[in-house]
Amino acid sequence: MTFMAQLAAAWQRNESLVCVGLDPEPERLPAPLRGDADAIFGFCAAIVDATADLVCCFKPQIAHFAAVGAEDALTRLIAHIHDRHPGVPVILDAKRGDIGSTAMRYAQEAFDRHGADAVTVNPYLGRDSVQPFLDRAEKGVVLLCRTSNPGARDLQDLVLAGSGGQRLYQHVATTVARDWNANGNCLLVVGATCPQELADVRRLAGDMPLLVPGVGAQGGDVEAVVRHGKTAAGSGLLISSSRAILYAGSGNDFASAARDATRALRDAINRCR
Amino acid sequence: MTFMAQLAAAWQRNESLVCVGLDPEPERLPAPLRGDADAIFGFCAAIVDATADLVCCFKPQIAHFAAVGAEDALTRLIAHIHDRHPGVPVILDAKRGDIGSTAMRYAQEAFDRHGADAVTVNPYLGRDSVQPFLDRAEKGVVLLCRTSNPGARDLQDLVLAGSGGQRLYQHVATTVARDWNANGNCLLVVGATCPQELADVRRLAGDMPLLVPGVGAQGGDVEAVVRHGKTAAGSGLLISSSRAILYAGSGNDFASAARDATRALRDAINRCR
Repeated sequence: MTFMAQLAAAWQRNESLVCVGLDPEPERLPAPLRGDADAIFGFCAAIVDATADLVCCFKPQIAHFAAVGAEDALTRLIAHIHDRHPGVPVILDAKRGDIGSTAMRYAQEAFDRHGADAVTVNPYLGRDSVQPFLDRAEKGVVLLCRTSNPGARDLQDLVLAGSGGQRLYQHVATTVARDWNANGNCLLVVGATCPQELADVRRLAGDMPLLVPGVGAQGGDVEAVVRHGKTAAGSGLLISSSRAILYAGSGNDFASAARDATRALRDAINRCR
Repeated sequence: MTFMAQLAAAWQRNESLVCVGLDPEPERLPAPLRGDADAIFGFCAAIVDATADLVCCFKPQIAHFAAVGAEDALTRLIAHIHDRHPGVPVILDAKRGDIGSTAMRYAQEAFDRHGADAVTVNPYLGRDSVQPFLDRAEKGVVLLCRTSNPGARDLQDLVLAGSGGQRLYQHVATTVARDWNANGNCLLVVGATCPQELADVRRLAGDMPLLVPGVGAQGGDVEAVVRHGKTAAGSGLLISSSRAILYAGSGNDFASAARDATRALRDAINRCR
């Protein structure tokens, strides 16, 4: 089953637009796990098992594994999700981008080595840098468009000449929707911290799924995200929260606290759809 | 010693602007090494040992290691360069870019885990995504500006409104030179395949070092690169070649063939300075 088909099924089955981001920070792991050699895997797997019926996908962030040499834990985590929770797709948040011959290696890293169902990709190097990902029609390709961080405005908000006022992120949205989505496997990243930009991208990208980080620790407003980002059918969003779920509890209750936080986010989103 | 000081010393000591890119492709390794469990390390270390006195730096490309789970070989390779060839700095080509809290993890990956002296970074997410790298004043931060691939024109060449015709890559060059270089540790990537753009960036970025990939397999012209890219002092360039050096020979002679190709490139560059 393709990533897009898995995502559509998970949206419906779990009645959820929530994406749980898996960004394990060694210094914030719950006390009971600290000192365990396999704490990163154990922590993430416990979060996954506690929330899998409440989400539409999981999104491990690779830097948190790579910084501490825990690529093997990442591979096992994705396999664990696929084994124990079949039908819940995994987006590897890696924001890769390089010339075509190297992009092919990054596609191998994400899809063949780690077994991810989708990967985030940076569009700055243009079409041929994204092509090796696009060619994997069964996989999802999640292009950065308008990110949630303050610096997003430095380049992404620049207005283009002769465009009637179009900004760079709007150009990215248009280009992806019009030219890069021949296999129907593209998604766009738009931050929850900029609801107006989210509305722009929804207008430009039709029903393309939007991955929306930035609720929770980064302060994005759920109601505004749903209102500006949803499709006419009240879906089309993967609303991602990481730290506010992962670190909802810090003791033996961390997994149940994560479950409560995930359910609360799912329900808050569903009330606005 | 800072990356910039190491680079300046290596330029002078080895009379070389050549950067050898280490992009090991398992299927192109020389026949004598194939089947060796540690072939990737052995291959790259042999290339390094054969060329270290002819270069100003080495540039391992991380995807080629990550695609096959060889991060450990990458760490050992960088340690090998530092041990055996002190004073030759290492740029990790990783093109990372993410929000600040994640960028900090990527900086750990490049500098603390792998021990690189510099890293390539994608500017699409703006200032705060680059700050954790900039803050490591002793390390080099190599920002993508105008890349060597065909798709570079898709975003990087877009003309900005109200700028007098400035293109996105020119805006990046100006922003990095003016705002992001407080620690004097920035460099820019400009492809050898676009000499006019190289001249633009040299004009906008003063004497900032430019990493120039795209000679060799990608077809960039050495004479045009030096003429358009050098500083007034005839330096300021890291001209990178990977495949044309790594795969110059395919049998037992691969290291000496790589040495010959590196010396030929160094001499061709020096004739134009």
